[in-house]
Amino acid sequence: MRTVDLNADLGESFGRWTLGDDEAMLDVVTSANVACGFHAGDPRGLLRVCEQAAERGVVVGAQVGYRDLAGFGRRFIDLDPADLLADVVYQIGALQGVCAAAGTSVRYVKPHGALYNAVVSHEAQARAVVEAVRRVDPSLPLLGLPGSVLLTLAEAAGIPTVAEAFADRAYTAVGTLVPRSEAGAVLHDPETVAARAVRLVATGRVDAADGTAVHVDAASLCVHGDSPGAVSMATAVRAGLEAAGVTLAPFVALAGQ
Amino acid sequence: MRTVDLNADLGESFGRWTLGDDEAMLDVVTSANVACGFHAGDPRGLLRVCEQAAERGVVVGAQVGYRDLAGFGRRFIDLDPADLLADVVYQIGALQGVCAAAGTSVRYVKPHGALYNAVVSHEAQARAVVEAVRRVDPSLPLLGLPGSVLLTLAEAAGIPTVAEAFADRAYTAVGTLVPRSEAGAVLHDPETVAARAVRLVATGRVDAADGTAVHVDAASLCVHGDSPGAVSMATAVRAGLEAAGVTLAPFVALAGQ
Amino acid sequence: MRTVDLNADLGESFGRWTLGDDEAMLDVVTSANVACGFHAGDPRGLLRVCEQAAERGVVVGAQVGYRDLAGFGRRFIDLDPADLLADVVYQIGALQGVCAAAGTSVRYVKPHGALYNAVVSHEAQARAVVEAVRRVDPSLPLLGLPGSVLLTLAEAAGIPTVAEAFADRAYTAVGTLVPRSEAGAVLHDPETVAARAVRLVATGRVDAADGTAVHVDAASLCVHGDSPGAVSMATAVRAGLEAAGVTLAPFVALAGQ
Amino acid sequence: MRTVDLNADLGESFGRWTLGDDEAMLDVVTSANVACGFHAGDPRGLLRVCEQAAERGVVVGAQVGYRDLAGFGRRFIDLDPADLLADVVYQIGALQGVCAAAGTSVRYVKPHGALYNAVVSHEAQARAVVEAVRRVDPSLPLLGLPGSVLLTLAEAAGIPTVAEAFADRAYTAVGTLVPRSEAGAVLHDPETVAARAVRLVATGRVDAADGTAVHVDAASLCVHGDSPGAVSMATAVRAGLEAAGVTLAPFVALAGQ
Repeated sequence: MRTVDLNADLGESFGRWTLGDDEAMLDVVTSANVACGFHAGDPRGLLRVCEQAAERGVVVGAQVGYRDLAGFGRRFIDLDPADLLADVVYQIGALQGVCAAAGTSVRYVKPHGALYNAVVSHEAQARAVVEAVRRVDPSLPLLGLPGSVLLTLAEAAGIPTVAEAFADRAYTAVGTLVPRSEAGAVLHDPETVAARAVRLVATGRVDAADGTAVHVDAASLCVHGDSPGAVSMATAVRAGLEAAGVTLAPFVALAGQ
Repeated sequence: MRTVDLNADLGESFGRWTLGDDEAMLDVVTSANVACGFHAGDPRGLLRVCEQAAERGVVVGAQVGYRDLAGFGRRFIDLDPADLLADVVYQIGALQGVCAAAGTSVRYVKPHGALYNAVVSHEAQARAVVEAVRRVDPSLPLLGLPGSVLLTLAEAAGIPTVAEAFADRAYTAVGTLVPRSEAGAVLHDPETVAARAVRLVATGRVDAADGTAVHVDAASLCVHGDSPGAVSMATAVRAGLEAAGVTLAPFVALAGQ
Repeated sequence: MRTVDLNADLGESFGRWTLGDDEAMLDVVTSANVACGFHAGDPRGLLRVCEQAAERGVVVGAQVGYRDLAGFGRRFIDLDPADLLADVVYQIGALQGVCAAAGTSVRYVKPHGALYNAVVSHEAQARAVVEAVRRVDPSLPLLGLPGSVLLTLAEAAGIPTVAEAFADRAYTAVGTLVPRSEAGAVLHDPETVAARAVRLVATGRVDAADGTAVHVDAASLCVHGDSPGAVSMATAVRAGLEAAGVTLAPFVALAGQ
Repeated sequence: MRTVDLNADLGESFGRWTLGDDEAMLDVVTSANVACGFHAGDPRGLLRVCEQAAERGVVVGAQVGYRDLAGFGRRFIDLDPADLLADVVYQIGALQGVCAAAGTSVRYVKPHGALYNAVVSHEAQARAVVEAVRRVDPSLPLLGLPGSVLLTLAEAAGIPTVAEAFADRAYTAVGTLVPRSEAGAVLHDPETVAARAVRLVATGRVDAADGTAVHVDAASLCVHGDSPGAVSMATAVRAGLEAAGVTLAPFVALAGQ
């Protein structure tokens, strides 16, 4: 695999509050996971980021989350799957409307924050997300963690799936992410992260925290958009990939979607 | 005119809180103005009411409002037109997503509460609503007050418009509604209201508060859904119209939309 | 024990949405668990119910919950204890302000919904609630389930505690509540419930679901305020207690608090 | 007058979103207008800023606003005065709770944003704010614009009032602020602003935009906390005042409140 997608979370400002530098990130990534207003993102800001994505040919995905502005969608909520299904439907639709007004469209769906983590293993919530996508538009791919219950259920439901990897996160020997609460879970040196990205794409392998090489099959790499240094990290990853002869392109284009 | 549409505001519950009897109203009306989550309406409740509308062949419209759950969208908010535009885009899209999941679609747009009143005369806000509809889907009709700035600007922008009348509201001699703050502004006797509805449809006229006959040209009659007695009032209006030989049908069907 | 407090959840309307009949319930109960705006309760409604409680000499407690209007505080949120602590502090303070404006004061604190259930066993969240009360006013009693981690930690922190029982809920043989998801978890016959209330107060015992008599030591009985029939159930319980010679009085008065 | 208070808006972050550098500003100002959660401010952030204010002996005031996180309280809302009264009561109480937990207390009240502007002339809203303060604690001073309806009504109600001036805002010849929409409304040069501050305190006069000297009687100067350069501007103003021999002290201390 000598081609890869680069995705980041964008549109996470809210009204007076700014988070990240969306415009700079849009010059680096090929897919933008745009917030949908439940964990972040006011409509005017979402409209602007979708317009900017459209101008640059960056593909837009709906980043759906828990209804929790105060917690930025980072707190697990034990909600009724029927509520979650409708919340996800609503969020995808809202961003579809915003995209229509911006001259683009929602091309995929990715869960955010605590929901992203929950649907790795929480079957009822994963099923609700899959069912929401199926009912709004079953041709929309779900982007998530390889091996997650979400992607497994999506495949079973006939929803396209795309696996992603994290060049700046430490992996365990079995291929899961080292929890953020542990030391060394997040890598901060752009050169190191870029090198890992290149190796991931070129070989499908990454060094786990214990030194063993782990196989990680991913069509997309996630870079973070809201930390200080996010833009330079993403830029370094992109430059490293390009220097290694890797082509960057939206996964939806690669898959013919 | 011997055919008319009957519309009502539905989907205005929120989570634990129930408002009105949506299912009973859906057996009476031909068009449902469904809330979009900003002034009322949680996604699960919206999904259910859209499913129920789909089952009955009742046409769904997006009832867009100010972002104000605490005020039920009934308080004027002096917001930047660019914010309002995006808020309306977001709401229409959200309900489109919900409708897609429910097997139906958004067929028109109607402003709610304080926004409905504002766009009768507030040009910047009216223009923002029109522009939002134009950017999401310019084929969606706007339902509103005849003579309002909203409908005037919509026509100028090439957006279809539909005028509505209120059989249970008192009219002034120049054809505007008597403000709710004045005595006699709202009529409560089902028989009287049904008779006014029949006359409105048959003759395009209604008796104003001062007794003069006013011309009101409307393709749709609005009945209220959230007051005690709403269902029996709406039922009486429908029965009165049918007894007078009036055909009830969604205005979008009549317009071939 | 021939004296008991009767408490109910009140102030749970929100803006346009009404829940329960607060005024009727205030004529029956001796303590009102008033919502604080996070799971329910708009400030104007809270002010009114606190004024009505003050007029009747009903004691007001702060019913604190998760920040979740859409879920009515009934969904567990796995939030950082430091966030929960501050959320509880904020809610108690808000109701203290409302009570000051209403001519009364907050006399105790009771967790609501999913938070109530969580702090039965979730130590970090229970500790956060206790710490919040300690930092705002350590003389405020916490009302909760006997044997809960919440009350245990409160006692250890020197916070007064008051245990409550439920006359309309089925108990297990070990004195815990039968989960609502099981059949027979909630009793609906006013006569039966009133008889259980009398027995609870007179003997400290209640028949468990399996027929064994369980000891339940409680200074307060909780009656529900938001279901249809809530007022008549509460009235039947009060009448049954009074007919049995039980005196009804706020627990804060009994404890000299 | 050779003594003055320096106030700024703080606590305006929300969850994941940071605004301004509260800790740096607390080293400069003598009074902190702390948000109350309706236009900005999550409870945990509010608790932290109140603790930091307490550590430094900075006096805390409740900065009350419209319930409008999406608009940061900067959009006029035409709400029922009875709703506004209760909203203000709730916010003051909430911050009182937070302050109690932080080892300090709310010492004054200042409206924020669009509410600040509204109560300059909107009598019903100004009356609601005054009545809210009167009902929670009539000894709490109201901080606002000299000559505003708010301060006039507060005085009539026996509420203490404190007038403030803006060293970085242009004044008209009649002593009102030049609207932000006009060029030159906000001054950006720290040296100029510091010199104006010194002159304001020393002489009670400021040069209006047309060059005439206007009398502005103010016991407090407001410096802005959320713009880039806010800290250096505030530091320059403080340094200029101190160099001119002006003593900086909280107005509540000066008034013996």
